[in-house]
Amino acid sequence: MLPQSPADNPFRLLSSCPDTNARVGELHTDHGIVPTPIFMPVGTQGALKAMAHRSLLELDVPIILANTYHLYLRPGVDTLSAMGGLHRFSTWDRPILTDSGGFQVFSLRELRTMSREGVVFRSHLDGSKHLFTPENVVDTQRAIGSDIFMVLDECTAYPADHEQARRSMDLTLHWAERGREHHLGSPFRYGHRQFQFGIGQGSVYPDLRRVCMSRLVDIGFDGYAIGGLSVGEPVENMYEIVACSTEVIPVSSARYLMGVGTPENILRSISMGVDMFDCVMPTRNARNGTIYTTKGRVNIKNATWKQRDEPIDDEVGSQSSRNYSLAYLRHLFNAGEILGLMLATEQNVALYRWLVRSAREKIIEGTFRQWAAETIERLNQPRA
Amino acid sequence: MLPQSPADNPFRLLSSCPDTNARVGELHTDHGIVPTPIFMPVGTQGALKAMAHRSLLELDVPIILANTYHLYLRPGVDTLSAMGGLHRFSTWDRPILTDSGGFQVFSLRELRTMSREGVVFRSHLDGSKHLFTPENVVDTQRAIGSDIFMVLDECTAYPADHEQARRSMDLTLHWAERGREHHLGSPFRYGHRQFQFGIGQGSVYPDLRRVCMSRLVDIGFDGYAIGGLSVGEPVENMYEIVACSTEVIPVSSARYLMGVGTPENILRSISMGVDMFDCVMPTRNARNGTIYTTKGRVNIKNATWKQRDEPIDDEVGSQSSRNYSLAYLRHLFNAGEILGLMLATEQNVALYRWLVRSAREKIIEGTFRQWAAETIERLNQPRA
Repeated sequence: MLPQSPADNPFRLLSSCPDTNARVGELHTDHGIVPTPIFMPVGTQGALKAMAHRSLLELDVPIILANTYHLYLRPGVDTLSAMGGLHRFSTWDRPILTDSGGFQVFSLRELRTMSREGVVFRSHLDGSKHLFTPENVVDTQRAIGSDIFMVLDECTAYPADHEQARRSMDLTLHWAERGREHHLGSPFRYGHRQFQFGIGQGSVYPDLRRVCMSRLVDIGFDGYAIGGLSVGEPVENMYEIVACSTEVIPVSSARYLMGVGTPENILRSISMGVDMFDCVMPTRNARNGTIYTTKGRVNIKNATWKQRDEPIDDEVGSQSSRNYSLAYLRHLFNAGEILGLMLATEQNVALYRWLVRSAREKIIEGTFRQWAAETIERLNQPRA
Repeated sequence: MLPQSPADNPFRLLSSCPDTNARVGELHTDHGIVPTPIFMPVGTQGALKAMAHRSLLELDVPIILANTYHLYLRPGVDTLSAMGGLHRFSTWDRPILTDSGGFQVFSLRELRTMSREGVVFRSHLDGSKHLFTPENVVDTQRAIGSDIFMVLDECTAYPADHEQARRSMDLTLHWAERGREHHLGSPFRYGHRQFQFGIGQGSVYPDLRRVCMSRLVDIGFDGYAIGGLSVGEPVENMYEIVACSTEVIPVSSARYLMGVGTPENILRSISMGVDMFDCVMPTRNARNGTIYTTKGRVNIKNATWKQRDEPIDDEVGSQSSRNYSLAYLRHLFNAGEILGLMLATEQNVALYRWLVRSAREKIIEGTFRQWAAETIERLNQPRA
């Protein structure tokens, strides 16, 4: 296969909100069209935790995320290549986005050494030593076969002073150049195109964020992500950085806010012009018993729900959430049943799917601003 | 509601095998007709472990089992009553069979005291003290609302000498009389009939087994179970007891072998005239990585399967087992993904469903004997 043209851009802007910077678009991939704004549930190791693919299809989830770091370690590049890539291996034939592995490696504080060349780290599984470079994470993501993949970046630790953040940003930009060059010179492997997104860093400093994103745009990626947020900074810093980043990313390109967040975070960021999100929050919280519903938040382990004979949620389009009661879900959690994790996960994924689908409709209708304010209030309250 | 007539019998015998004692029938309940021979997957706490009800419906599983002991402790009789019984609580509208709780209490060796009145035990959850009597386990099963429920019995410990086994059998028969009388005098609660089965004991002694089962038949139950097997005795003892028990149970009544077993155990017991089975083996083994397939047994954690790009099983009627490869399932187990437990469970439940469905067809066709011999050999071998 020939490498893609530098001018490839999967994003099509369709319409904009009259009152906010929110917008509606599509990502065109060879595994299908993804309507935006979109939330991507996280299937770290090539599978959503406690949720079957067919349940994702029932909720019409158009794209999922997988983690390069985890897949690189298990099942490994050899097996992924032998199986024809992650789509075929996991029988998921809709789009997949993979991160670069940088964020996971960044989390291995004790086990990694950064250099200009790349990052040496020890596996959290067996302590074995590995090197990620801007070039070889492209190769790994070629083997995974994801439709959209991310360039290697350094997720700047929080807090960082301006000088630390600048040095970290410089490394990210150096890696971005190398990663982009390698991407444009390397073929895709399974007959479908793979888009590469750049990742902006710069900690909480708007000047660095603007410089970083402008230089990424100069390099020229197929889409742009805002990285290094939701790592401990105050939420108002996060919104400030989102706002100043989306100003720099071209209107014609997809904007992806990585690792965010709560339903409120998502609606507020959509209003600033973000198109794409991912986060472990809905799936991880589900397994801890925190359920998001259109009637408010639920801690399902609470005795309040013991005999609550009403559906988990009848608005979000999940058959399970319509059929099963809060009382039954509470019993399953109380009794330690895996089915509890399954139903809670399905509800939270359905809620996030409903959230971005509704946001998209409201932007098109021109009623997004008010709907978003009401929805944030409704979802944030504890369920009565 | 009025109590049922003593003459109620849910079983209809439809045809018999020309070469063996195998037979084909139906159990008629108010939640539907169950074709026999049948295997009932175990949903101990009102849910199959790692398997959603809709997956059971896809496999056309007509009946599941739940455990009275566990449901009595959690969610408890109050909640089950308030929720309208287990069918409604768990949204399972097909038949449910519950055991009496006797077997679970029998397993709590250190925590129970047997007497002629009943059995006093301490909860394995919080140490609280409870009493099960032949009468109150009827009441509890009335509150659960199971379609078929079991009388309280004493599962005789193995090994037991003849005198111990006889004394234990006498207690079981005393409880059977009291349980039956209470059943016939107590109304069902949710508008559907509930059948009560007796349970034969007598350890490995054919004379005691015959006496016990004859006296149960004299008392008159809606069906008859063979209890106290698969508790450590040699398998040939088990088959001997199954054979002498099925001789005593009237041809017109359902015969239920409790807690058994492997696919081979089931086919051999079907050939002796058993109609019903339950066992945690398919679901528990699935979670341990032991997968039953029509091509032989698989230990999915074995590295053999790392790149095995073939379906888990394309014969058993499970969409997941047809779609997913052994390599992907192995990856999920290796990576500790809940989806691995889900897919393995679905395969094993599908295999057992396929097993009894096929047995039924072969009995009707008159080819059961040879098919069973071939199938036992095929399923017992390790998969190549």
